[in-house]
Amino acid sequence: MPSSAPAFYVPESAMAIVAHPDDIDFGSAGTLARWAKHGCRISYVLCTSGDVGIAEGGMTKARAIEIREAEQRAAADIVGAQEVIFLREPDGMLQATMELRKKLVREIRRFRPEVVFVMDPTLVWAGDDYINHPDHRAAGLAAVDAVFPAAGQPNLFQELESEGLTAFKPRKVYSQNWRDGDCYVSIDDTIDLKIAALRAHKSQMGDWDPEPRIREWAASRAKGHEMQYAEIFRVVTLESDEDWAKHKGDVTSRNHKAETKPAKPTAKKSHPKAAAKKPAARRAAKRKA
Amino acid sequence: MPSSAPAFYVPESAMAIVAHPDDIDFGSAGTLARWAKHGCRISYVLCTSGDVGIAEGGMTKARAIEIREAEQRAAADIVGAQEVIFLREPDGMLQATMELRKKLVREIRRFRPEVVFVMDPTLVWAGDDYINHPDHRAAGLAAVDAVFPAAGQPNLFQELESEGLTAFKPRKVYSQNWRDGDCYVSIDDTIDLKIAALRAHKSQMGDWDPEPRIREWAASRAKGHEMQYAEIFRVVTLESDEDWAKHKGDVTSRNHKAETKPAKPTAKKSHPKAAAKKPAARRAAKRKA
Amino acid sequence: MPSSAPAFYVPESAMAIVAHPDDIDFGSAGTLARWAKHGCRISYVLCTSGDVGIAEGGMTKARAIEIREAEQRAAADIVGAQEVIFLREPDGMLQATMELRKKLVREIRRFRPEVVFVMDPTLVWAGDDYINHPDHRAAGLAAVDAVFPAAGQPNLFQELESEGLTAFKPRKVYSQNWRDGDCYVSIDDTIDLKIAALRAHKSQMGDWDPEPRIREWAASRAKGHEMQYAEIFRVVTLESDEDWAKHKGDVTSRNHKAETKPAKPTAKKSHPKAAAKKPAARRAAKRKA
Amino acid sequence: MPSSAPAFYVPESAMAIVAHPDDIDFGSAGTLARWAKHGCRISYVLCTSGDVGIAEGGMTKARAIEIREAEQRAAADIVGAQEVIFLREPDGMLQATMELRKKLVREIRRFRPEVVFVMDPTLVWAGDDYINHPDHRAAGLAAVDAVFPAAGQPNLFQELESEGLTAFKPRKVYSQNWRDGDCYVSIDDTIDLKIAALRAHKSQMGDWDPEPRIREWAASRAKGHEMQYAEIFRVVTLESDEDWAKHKGDVTSRNHKAETKPAKPTAKKSHPKAAAKKPAARRAAKRKA
Amino acid sequence: MPSSAPAFYVPESAMAIVAHPDDIDFGSAGTLARWAKHGCRISYVLCTSGDVGIAEGGMTKARAIEIREAEQRAAADIVGAQEVIFLREPDGMLQATMELRKKLVREIRRFRPEVVFVMDPTLVWAGDDYINHPDHRAAGLAAVDAVFPAAGQPNLFQELESEGLTAFKPRKVYSQNWRDGDCYVSIDDTIDLKIAALRAHKSQMGDWDPEPRIREWAASRAKGHEMQYAEIFRVVTLESDEDWAKHKGDVTSRNHKAETKPAKPTAKKSHPKAAAKKPAARRAAKRKA
Amino acid sequence: MPSSAPAFYVPESAMAIVAHPDDIDFGSAGTLARWAKHGCRISYVLCTSGDVGIAEGGMTKARAIEIREAEQRAAADIVGAQEVIFLREPDGMLQATMELRKKLVREIRRFRPEVVFVMDPTLVWAGDDYINHPDHRAAGLAAVDAVFPAAGQPNLFQELESEGLTAFKPRKVYSQNWRDGDCYVSIDDTIDLKIAALRAHKSQMGDWDPEPRIREWAASRAKGHEMQYAEIFRVVTLESDEDWAKHKGDVTSRNHKAETKPAKPTAKKSHPKAAAKKPAARRAAKRKA
Repeated sequence: MPSSAPAFYVPESAMAIVAHPDDIDFGSAGTLARWAKHGCRISYVLCTSGDVGIAEGGMTKARAIEIREAEQRAAADIVGAQEVIFLREPDGMLQATMELRKKLVREIRRFRPEVVFVMDPTLVWAGDDYINHPDHRAAGLAAVDAVFPAAGQPNLFQELESEGLTAFKPRKVYSQNWRDGDCYVSIDDTIDLKIAALRAHKSQMGDWDPEPRIREWAASRAKGHEMQYAEIFRVVTLESDEDWAKHKGDVTSRNHKAETKPAKPTAKKSHPKAAAKKPAARRAAKRKA
Repeated sequence: MPSSAPAFYVPESAMAIVAHPDDIDFGSAGTLARWAKHGCRISYVLCTSGDVGIAEGGMTKARAIEIREAEQRAAADIVGAQEVIFLREPDGMLQATMELRKKLVREIRRFRPEVVFVMDPTLVWAGDDYINHPDHRAAGLAAVDAVFPAAGQPNLFQELESEGLTAFKPRKVYSQNWRDGDCYVSIDDTIDLKIAALRAHKSQMGDWDPEPRIREWAASRAKGHEMQYAEIFRVVTLESDEDWAKHKGDVTSRNHKAETKPAKPTAKKSHPKAAAKKPAARRAAKRKA
Repeated sequence: MPSSAPAFYVPESAMAIVAHPDDIDFGSAGTLARWAKHGCRISYVLCTSGDVGIAEGGMTKARAIEIREAEQRAAADIVGAQEVIFLREPDGMLQATMELRKKLVREIRRFRPEVVFVMDPTLVWAGDDYINHPDHRAAGLAAVDAVFPAAGQPNLFQELESEGLTAFKPRKVYSQNWRDGDCYVSIDDTIDLKIAALRAHKSQMGDWDPEPRIREWAASRAKGHEMQYAEIFRVVTLESDEDWAKHKGDVTSRNHKAETKPAKPTAKKSHPKAAAKKPAARRAAKRKA
Repeated sequence: MPSSAPAFYVPESAMAIVAHPDDIDFGSAGTLARWAKHGCRISYVLCTSGDVGIAEGGMTKARAIEIREAEQRAAADIVGAQEVIFLREPDGMLQATMELRKKLVREIRRFRPEVVFVMDPTLVWAGDDYINHPDHRAAGLAAVDAVFPAAGQPNLFQELESEGLTAFKPRKVYSQNWRDGDCYVSIDDTIDLKIAALRAHKSQMGDWDPEPRIREWAASRAKGHEMQYAEIFRVVTLESDEDWAKHKGDVTSRNHKAETKPAKPTAKKSHPKAAAKKPAARRAAKRKA
Repeated sequence: MPSSAPAFYVPESAMAIVAHPDDIDFGSAGTLARWAKHGCRISYVLCTSGDVGIAEGGMTKARAIEIREAEQRAAADIVGAQEVIFLREPDGMLQATMELRKKLVREIRRFRPEVVFVMDPTLVWAGDDYINHPDHRAAGLAAVDAVFPAAGQPNLFQELESEGLTAFKPRKVYSQNWRDGDCYVSIDDTIDLKIAALRAHKSQMGDWDPEPRIREWAASRAKGHEMQYAEIFRVVTLESDEDWAKHKGDVTSRNHKAETKPAKPTAKKSHPKAAAKKPAARRAAKRKA
Repeated sequence: MPSSAPAFYVPESAMAIVAHPDDIDFGSAGTLARWAKHGCRISYVLCTSGDVGIAEGGMTKARAIEIREAEQRAAADIVGAQEVIFLREPDGMLQATMELRKKLVREIRRFRPEVVFVMDPTLVWAGDDYINHPDHRAAGLAAVDAVFPAAGQPNLFQELESEGLTAFKPRKVYSQNWRDGDCYVSIDDTIDLKIAALRAHKSQMGDWDPEPRIREWAASRAKGHEMQYAEIFRVVTLESDEDWAKHKGDVTSRNHKAETKPAKPTAKKSHPKAAAKKPAARRAAKRKA
């Protein structure tokens, strides 16, 4: 961990929620590796363990799960993630049920990540030679709905309190659809780790060397941004800088503060509910104690 | 009610279908209040009663429902709505089930609104500081699917006939996503009512005064449209002016008319099915008696 | 069947998956008729039999199904389709369940179509006088999710092997939303068949003659493309020309080939997963025997 | 002139700069007539007198000028314009020369219009059956360049001071290209005048009655804006409300004011130079005396 | 010339107006060659003779003109053009002067082409490795302004009557900017001629074989349009089918017709002036005799 | 100058061509200062000396030129530019004449800049409170036309050889319109210099402190790009990396090389002429000796 603060944004903690082993490594591993290098705690949450993704003769789902989870853990080690959680939903048949939402809320309230990475649930058509995998959409939708408002709403999934888990509001969501975004993250220093992490998914790579393709994609995104290699994301900031500084996403603690009046909503708020609901939520939280 | 007809469109009746108490007041209350002033009958249908939205200590869901329904009824009185229907689906966990669709069809067939307001079900990403609430998407999807074709299709939810409810086709759908639209409605005369209605949601407003923000948003939408304050909507006209004039959305009555041939589809129809299906539907209705 | 190869693309087989009788005929019948003329085997899969679509007095769902299936079969004969499959899901209440996905995977693995036509599941708002029918969205989503990756994934719906059905990867998906697309197909030679097929849906047409409207739409799409009449589609190519030539969508046979290394991914691949996953899938299939 | 202030924007004065007789009447006559009714002084500046626009046998350019200027003056009377200025540049061969810019600066400095209407100089391709007339582009470019910064820059065309004309900054520019814009002006009360003004161009109308077409276009623009008929414009505000209230566009007077510091630039300024240059210009003007 | 009419549009005559030798061959030679094969008369008008385009030591402009004009004539022979006109404006310094406009009006009135090809004058930025050549913009602007309204306006450049040239209205303009358009023309049958024509510009090709690149571009444009190779254009129709059938662009003859009333403007007209001006122009022409 | 190569692009030399004193400092001074710090030679070319931009009483144009040139030289010193060239065209009346193009070609051939900064000549409408200054468009158009192809075309402005100036091809063009672009340059290290350079234009700043506004703009552009402050540009690469490495823009030297065949055009070329013309130009240059 470097002694001086880096010039770019590094959250204290991040959680990546995806459908399958290797989704993180294709998607955000470069960014996560960089943040890990600068001290960010990282959690991986995999909705499925990719149990249908090994088609060898005689392969069982149980064995496939064993292999792929091991591969994903190896990849996580390369990237520098602290933990890998497998929800073991059925691969290829993932559905954005209320049950899955609850499982994800549990992980969010437990790990309390500053940033949550999600797959973009709105992507269906994805160019002229790919259709976005239905599991990706399901994982994305469940994750988005878990992040907001469920994880930070004390009265939703309140039964998780019995597990010692209380409401938590992540600060930012990073959504990825491979095609567009408003946030460019340099992975110059970590593209080698990203490639190594991908290679850890041996059952998926076969003879294919991901390096040239990964470098090409990352370079094409970096062009014009003073980066050699980049990953891109759509970023939504759910907690303002000011609120984050004060509460770190904690909801229950807010009512201990002497907040005589809500922070003045700024003119930059793009959506009525974004600003308008905030004071209410804050007030609501305040009264809760 | 004024003696002379207003220069703008005022339907005879309108129903607003939303997820939570206060959604109507943030969204379309200015338009509804204006229409109410000009004699429009108005019904509010709330899928949930916002039971998780009050986070005070010791608050129960039952008590929260009581408070929030009362607030919404007070707001409805300010706006001039005739009725407020609460479906009491679970707040924060609303899902666009077939059961919810049926409940909405029931309300539509009962109240027979000329216009139905819905929340845009396609909105997920909503600017850089808000994600559209999953309940909003669920309420929107259920409402859209209830309006077309279910409410007006005599053979769907036919069991509602036992409640004396027959098929009804709303004339227009007003969809709202806060960001774009093709219909600007002046709320110059009713923005004060909109603000007052919002203030009625005391449990949500806390110390926050909605007035400055509401005026700012409404003014930004009004700019360049000869309005001081506006609300914007996407409008879909499901029944043509001619059909509406003849049938007022009634489906069963159509077969009493001597319709020797279907109305000539006009060149303006933007979608094959829009025009092509209409004669068939009409003919079908005709034969039904 | 002509002796010489046509100058345009004609697949060996195609399957159209839709919600209702007449959806194919409004949508892709011109293209299908043309392909049929050039030897393409064609299968129609109808999720519902349009049982609520005849509103005559005394009409039962059973009788409506009988009438509409007969009409669709007559239309299929005009177009030149080999078979018409009715899944008899409930009309007007279709839902994209995992069960429907499985039924569609069964048909795809059985018929093994080179091309699958689907309705665009992303279309909700469709102009200022139509909302896309919820059944269309449900049929489209189930079809898209059945095509990729389910149909071609040997470990998904593996139980279908007991019916003698093994994994199959369609080569291309043609999606239709009536409004845009990147593939223009001339129906100059078959618009008469399309119109005749539409007329076969007598219970739906009533007094309405589809001819003028159909010609107008098809002509507006053809303008500027050296066609008199056209249908338009969004086309996704899931199997590369090279893979298709070798395997014809067969998955299990792939491991008999001496593939020493995966085909070099080309620079044209638009999506990381499109190219990256291919070698893995191929390898996976290879190991399966 | 009405006793009470209208609810919409009415400038004290407006100048419309166009290429040919009838351009104003096709374009902005509805808006101008409405403003005239509410007391706005209006000046028409025609770069050409349409001398090639009458193709009768034996017609001379001199005679054509006489006819068309009379027609334009008649149309101006109908609309309620105070004056019609003809610059008599060659019709069909108009060029945006520095000389034309100067002529337009002279008219602007003389009439001192709060609003200047211009033709959009950037429009070349204008749909699939029209190319924007080169004279329209030339008149538009000369007008735009005359309005900003020339008219309001005391050191440009300073020789006009010998005619008693000093620098003047118009408050707003209304640009028209018939196709898009951000400002909708209701012409419900004046569409009859617009049609009558068009009919005054007898040499141009021939047997064609402009009424149905004009109503159709104006209605299509009005749809969704609580107007029956509308004209649309792109509006650029060159002088802030505050500056206009203080100076009314006058440049030389500014240095008599005790402006201890420039007005605080607001966050809404979209362009660096828009705000940044303003204080400098103001300061510069101030020092001039 | 084939005995039966082709299934695609072939005008009776066409004129291509460009800046330099080889511009036509890169641009529209495939389309022109196809039309020539079907009997279309074709004229090439080159504003410059590419005199600065040969950089050999000792090369003079006179010699360069000789070489490049010979190359262009050879290319025109390959394509099947009837004539090649060289205006010999200065290469690299072309300007869209009124004099150039007049020269182009002269050629249009003389050759009376049904279709005029122009270079898109609005294109400046053209991708990340090319800026559109200023000569291309100048040739395009002069051509657009010559086509409309100058060539068809009897009172403009009336002095050309002394050369026996009277006003003529081209039916259509085909504009090319290499990047987008609404008209796809198949060059399947003539791409070999296009390549051969390009090769005729020996002084420009050097060692570079245009074939692979030309096939690649033409194929990329053809994709999805039932063509193997295509050229694309933006097409503006200046004379309606009806007017063209009656007058063939002739202006003076129109007044001999007994036109009791102008053709009813259709609802499809996209631009006020497109329809509105037409009757006036027609009437004007009528009165001219 | 740092001992190790920076991680971002720094050209050997750059020339900024603008209309007025202070245009560079509002536009690209942050980028230029950064490059200067890393050893880039920088030339400023100002078409006018801003002679009308000081409106003090008694101010003469001669005195204004003296003041503003001194201010611009001071600003250039702050940024680190080597030279400031004033062409002294008339301020407020700049026109993109062939003479101006020649003057700019002279400067380019003399200074031989790797990168040329231009103002975007296509920008007319620039938000709702600014119209792009006509001088900016004129300077931009003259600069674009000077850069390509004139500066690098040995047979254009050949008379400059008498001044010892030979053809030179700049490698890249950076175009600025303040609103969009594809190249983000960090000015984190030089925004203070940019602000100081702006303050050097004392006659323009008056009481206005540019700092807050400049920081706000630069920050809004930097957001999401791992920069604190940014300037943005559209970048066109006219000489490929390979050609630049070999020739450094020199044209005459190319024929001494043993180029047996032109470099293989890559698939990335976006425009036919971009690649196609290159070999010809190269060959042409080669033959020139």
